[in-house]
Amino acid sequence: MTRKNPKRKRTKALSSSSVESRDAKPHEHGTSLEEFRHFRERLNAEILGEGNLVINRFFALDTRTYEAGALDVRTKELLGLVASLVLRCDDCVTYHLTRCAEERVSRAEIFESLSIGLIVGGSIVIPHLRRAVDRWSELERLAR
Amino acid sequence: MTRKNPKRKRTKALSSSSVESRDAKPHEHGTSLEEFRHFRERLNAEILGEGNLVINRFFALDTRTYEAGALDVRTKELLGLVASLVLRCDDCVTYHLTRCAEERVSRAEIFESLSIGLIVGGSIVIPHLRRAVDRWSELERLAR
Amino acid sequence: MTRKNPKRKRTKALSSSSVESRDAKPHEHGTSLEEFRHFRERLNAEILGEGNLVINRFFALDTRTYEAGALDVRTKELLGLVASLVLRCDDCVTYHLTRCAEERVSRAEIFESLSIGLIVGGSIVIPHLRRAVDRWSELERLAR
Amino acid sequence: MTRKNPKRKRTKALSSSSVESRDAKPHEHGTSLEEFRHFRERLNAEILGEGNLVINRFFALDTRTYEAGALDVRTKELLGLVASLVLRCDDCVTYHLTRCAEERVSRAEIFESLSIGLIVGGSIVIPHLRRAVDRWSELERLAR
Amino acid sequence: MTRKNPKRKRTKALSSSSVESRDAKPHEHGTSLEEFRHFRERLNAEILGEGNLVINRFFALDTRTYEAGALDVRTKELLGLVASLVLRCDDCVTYHLTRCAEERVSRAEIFESLSIGLIVGGSIVIPHLRRAVDRWSELERLAR
Amino acid sequence: MTRKNPKRKRTKALSSSSVESRDAKPHEHGTSLEEFRHFRERLNAEILGEGNLVINRFFALDTRTYEAGALDVRTKELLGLVASLVLRCDDCVTYHLTRCAEERVSRAEIFESLSIGLIVGGSIVIPHLRRAVDRWSELERLAR
Repeated sequence: MTRKNPKRKRTKALSSSSVESRDAKPHEHGTSLEEFRHFRERLNAEILGEGNLVINRFFALDTRTYEAGALDVRTKELLGLVASLVLRCDDCVTYHLTRCAEERVSRAEIFESLSIGLIVGGSIVIPHLRRAVDRWSELERLAR
Repeated sequence: MTRKNPKRKRTKALSSSSVESRDAKPHEHGTSLEEFRHFRERLNAEILGEGNLVINRFFALDTRTYEAGALDVRTKELLGLVASLVLRCDDCVTYHLTRCAEERVSRAEIFESLSIGLIVGGSIVIPHLRRAVDRWSELERLAR
Repeated sequence: MTRKNPKRKRTKALSSSSVESRDAKPHEHGTSLEEFRHFRERLNAEILGEGNLVINRFFALDTRTYEAGALDVRTKELLGLVASLVLRCDDCVTYHLTRCAEERVSRAEIFESLSIGLIVGGSIVIPHLRRAVDRWSELERLAR
Repeated sequence: MTRKNPKRKRTKALSSSSVESRDAKPHEHGTSLEEFRHFRERLNAEILGEGNLVINRFFALDTRTYEAGALDVRTKELLGLVASLVLRCDDCVTYHLTRCAEERVSRAEIFESLSIGLIVGGSIVIPHLRRAVDRWSELERLAR
Repeated sequence: MTRKNPKRKRTKALSSSSVESRDAKPHEHGTSLEEFRHFRERLNAEILGEGNLVINRFFALDTRTYEAGALDVRTKELLGLVASLVLRCDDCVTYHLTRCAEERVSRAEIFESLSIGLIVGGSIVIPHLRRAVDRWSELERLAR
Repeated sequence: MTRKNPKRKRTKALSSSSVESRDAKPHEHGTSLEEFRHFRERLNAEILGEGNLVINRFFALDTRTYEAGALDVRTKELLGLVASLVLRCDDCVTYHLTRCAEERVSRAEIFESLSIGLIVGGSIVIPHLRRAVDRWSELERLAR
């Protein structure tokens, strides 16, 4: 959740022209991806700048957690995604969906992961599932 | 949470004229009821259209859950309402409040149900209680 | 959750002879109903005896919550049961099941209530559903 | 969470001139502090006006909980803050941050409290940590 | 969580001789694996025998969720494991660890999955992490 | 939650003679304090011995979190206690109660902290409150 500058494999997704195509179908359920990123980066900078040792080390450790090891990065991001979905954190889901898009996870893989979160977490997860699917479609449009 | 077209017993509540009266007292705590419904229907369609068997069956099963059986529909909707409140899901609360309005549950019954959610779930529930009461009053205005 | 001495309509259920029949089929999933009650009563006494105003008033308020009003006692106990199930608190489920047995709620009504908790809360609820069903069967044996 | 009129030690913080300085750096993550307060006060009045005994007593009891006793008010507000953070309730966090500002808790004390919430609650807490820090900075600007 | 008879690839793990080696190092944190399985199977039979349509369909759907699709079975079981860990359900963790053992997931893969659950869920997860590691070591001893 | 060897200021509390007095009033609600400690230390050793970098750093960071800074150790332990109570983790509550006893927190301070957890978390917290009070009384007996 805390990486400030992950290598972006799909920079095209973030170009201004694709942002326009996003605007063509306005986002309805709250913060846009661009607003989310801007707020996240601004506050991460403010938090890390405070110099609280525990918080700063936790942010660094959080980044390490998703690096390749016995499991590859894609699997780890899917684990982070499903954990975020059952704990019902939209911002965390958005973050991991963004990373999954960068790792070229397929739409079918995303839906199967979300289906596990839905069955484990129940109907209370459905509003978050809707926002996750909306985000994923937004990311697909940006990547075109 | 997933029914696409529940029989509406109180169609008057959804007429354009009552929507105007709602606008006279603007909704302060986020998405309006109309925006919530639109987003929900659009995303339900997108999700179900994907054809993921597990998700689609879960959505169908969710609908079956609240049908009359040993318990009547009103009691089941109140059970769904209180479960949604203690799990602190505003969208789920909104959905069950809408269904309760359609089933002509009284304001006193709603408040007693909410009071159980408050006592079981504690003060952390209060912000969701506020939004639930605001939604209920909105539904009452729409039904007039 | 805190009532110390609810009027018991089915005192036969708590007679020593029925306790024997329970012992014939030993309880597998942890504390027996008798141990639960003993621990609960002993600790409630210790807690209330401490004289902490906030805690004591909360315990009193908790009792008031389930008294008849716009909704009857049975409906309120079912609301407490489902709230407890989705929040996955075995002791709270046991308490409300005991009250439901006293209020002569039927097995079918219990199962429909539990099914709502299962759908709202997801598969994570299943272990608690198992223990709830085991408790209910225990209460039925005690009531024979 | 429910006090309607806590003694405000720092009334300057709420003066119209400081509200202007807030507007100079617009709030990005949702409801402004002023909107939050307005909605909270309007709905508290509507809820308490309903006359539901359980809800009204709970609101009164909630206020009593944070009064000085064996622990002082500042410590109690920090306990409320961390409990709200690990339960991931932004509105509750905002409320306790406001009270902490009134009690002249320092920025370092706030960050250490938040760090405990982060370690106990994990990375799922991070989006709420960001909003908490953003709120605290907003409160500091208002108090200048 | 609900499969009654998954194909067991490692039947040796469940032979009586390996059960003896388990008993040589007694299990300290509650129910043994054998007790867990027995209780689970007995109650699943009682629940499914009740014939509640919603519950029975949910149990069937839960089984379908972890079948191979765009993602393979091992990845899906790891997703179920991490979801169970962050939601802090020991029985669910035990179930998915058992399935992971059957699918020959390595100890390093289990630890990396658990580490994601720990970082996402925070220190509140640690007691469940301990029990998960104890279970996994028990499963390894049974498989020797 | 993870410190292996906190400086013990009240070693008398752990002497064998006081353990006897504990046994005179047997513990009813599960694992005894001694069993809890033994299991915790054995598993912490197994987990840390595995050498997973993320887990080991998190355990180290968890220890740092409760060291004195802008807030003193006692306040931080109370923050950890209330966070653990509202998240309903008995083992975490036991750990922080043990540390509070070592830091000579008074019974009244413990009860006020628990009362905040009760009000924030609601009646679902009550079973954990009972076990917390039982643990605290056990710790007081051990310290005599």
